Amino acid sequence: MRVGIMGYGNLGKGIECAIKQNKDMELVAVFSRREPSTVKILTEGVKVYSVDDAIKMKDEIDVLILCGGSATDLPTQTPEYAKYFTVIDSFDTHARIPEHFANVDATAKENGNVAIISCGWDPGMFSLNRLYASCILPSGADYTFWGKGVSQGHSDAIRRIDGVANAKQYTVPVDAALEKVRNGENPELTTREKHTRECYVVAKEGADKDRIAEEIKTMPNYFADYDTTVNFITEEELQRDHSGIPHGGFVIRSGKTGWNEENSHIIEYSLKLDSNPEFTASVIVAYARAAYRMKQEGMTGCKTVFDIAPAYLSPCSAEELRAHML
Amino acid sequence: MRVGIMGYGNLGKGIECAIKQNKDMELVAVFSRREPSTVKILTEGVKVYSVDDAIKMKDEIDVLILCGGSATDLPTQTPEYAKYFTVIDSFDTHARIPEHFANVDATAKENGNVAIISCGWDPGMFSLNRLYASCILPSGADYTFWGKGVSQGHSDAIRRIDGVANAKQYTVPVDAALEKVRNGENPELTTREKHTRECYVVAKEGADKDRIAEEIKTMPNYFADYDTTVNFITEEELQRDHSGIPHGGFVIRSGKTGWNEENSHIIEYSLKLDSNPEFTASVIVAYARAAYRMKQEGMTGCKTVFDIAPAYLSPCSAEELRAHML
Repeated sequence: MRVGIMGYGNLGKGIECAIKQNKDMELVAVFSRREPSTVKILTEGVKVYSVDDAIKMKDEIDVLILCGGSATDLPTQTPEYAKYFTVIDSFDTHARIPEHFANVDATAKENGNVAIISCGWDPGMFSLNRLYASCILPSGADYTFWGKGVSQGHSDAIRRIDGVANAKQYTVPVDAALEKVRNGENPELTTREKHTRECYVVAKEGADKDRIAEEIKTMPNYFADYDTTVNFITEEELQRDHSGIPHGGFVIRSGKTGWNEENSHIIEYSLKLDSNPEFTASVIVAYARAAYRMKQEGMTGCKTVFDIAPAYLSPCSAEELRAHML
Repeated sequence: MRVGIMGYGNLGKGIECAIKQNKDMELVAVFSRREPSTVKILTEGVKVYSVDDAIKMKDEIDVLILCGGSATDLPTQTPEYAKYFTVIDSFDTHARIPEHFANVDATAKENGNVAIISCGWDPGMFSLNRLYASCILPSGADYTFWGKGVSQGHSDAIRRIDGVANAKQYTVPVDAALEKVRNGENPELTTREKHTRECYVVAKEGADKDRIAEEIKTMPNYFADYDTTVNFITEEELQRDHSGIPHGGFVIRSGKTGWNEENSHIIEYSLKLDSNPEFTASVIVAYARAAYRMKQEGMTGCKTVFDIAPAYLSPCSAEELRAHML
């Protein structure tokens, strides 16, 4: 299975690493908007091309993995490349998924290709677990907690404040809330009760730290609804202690069964990730295999994790899976 | 969707309760080997029939749920009833799944029906989680822990010992082993290191308790390879404190990503169940919906949880799922 990567940021690099771990896959090209000669990749013998050369290579690539951003790249890229390739993306603007699905589905169907959208862990594995658990326990409640992990958007928001040189923000689930959910108490939780926000900020020389902390804590949408702590540290400390991109979280369904709903059950799915982009890439690569196989079977159109039978993700045959994994 | 239940033990009763929670389903018949007039069910207006009458009702039932045992009932029942019905079972003898699949697949295909086998939580949801996690993190190790929960087979084995009036056995995962796995240490664990066995035994009057405890602890296959504790209690205490059928467990995958596998990830799926048969029934009922839909779409043959796209389990449309759950 010959794979192309469109966009070589953190996610693209994660895809490259994941391909190395899957023996049935081969990286054949990386496409970048940057001048190709300036982009250094890890895989020996594989070339970097300009995005403008991608379509010319459509017969040399079985699946093209789109690693752009959800705000401006993917809404145009995925429907466009689904005309020429079997594609997969990690579109994660939840509210715009129906629109994105419709656009991608149209061009994928018209051109006889398979396209998978919104693949990763949320949307992705967390969505899957919400779906399975809610179907199994229809009388119950769902809880999703994120973290402890780095939120790129919140870190960026802090960096835009006057006097801030650098910053990293962690979203942290509140243990007491998690415990209530795990105990089957089915609590109603406010935003503030579910997560706290921890900020590590490098201030520019002479900047007013009190004013910066106040601006962070009162920032609408991003921080005002949370208990937020602000820690000022040096750039060296930031690089030494906060250079990773960890993340994770919990999807918990608490539900009742029995003639009078007298029995309680807890289904919990959790992730603890050293590298958010590498894990996301690993999910995408498994689903890229599914896309390739579905295309080979003659399917077309846009799919999500909900539409894909789990066996498609595995390099093993159905017989092997039944014998060894069921 | 009209459902029939074949066999009215703990699982059959759990199915009946689960159907009550799913508004798109209706229980239309319960079949029993017992004299029908002696079988009292919970659902008003639904009749109990002799198993001999099942085939006559094939046009009144959309899915027949087989609630017999894996040792002797299901190996003959599932292939037989797949001739006449869309069926689903919870066949759980892992080693014999390939053979059972082949038998069921043959009659289901020949007669244009869909059959789902080995549905529940292990095999079932645990299998699914092993599959998803191993596809996402190919470089890693899988761990399954069971419990704390009642093992019916082990409880039965104790009851067969001379001098034992009644008994209940709990399988308990070892916390220290769980912690090592969660820490990404990828330990090699022996049987003894993964689980302990707790036995609550009611001795007959005058029985030699030391001899009973010794017989339990040294019983090959069942207890000899485990650290086993034996507690003698009264029948009243057994009824008061140990009448439930709780169970659960953990499926954990620990894996590495990155160009030099420098990043660690933990995927954990866990269940905490008040009632093992009611939860198993809840999984089966969700997959019964999938079987019904797959049959409506013209599919035939035997399927497992690996072959079924998650969206089939839900009463919601694909559009609703994408808009609200992805």
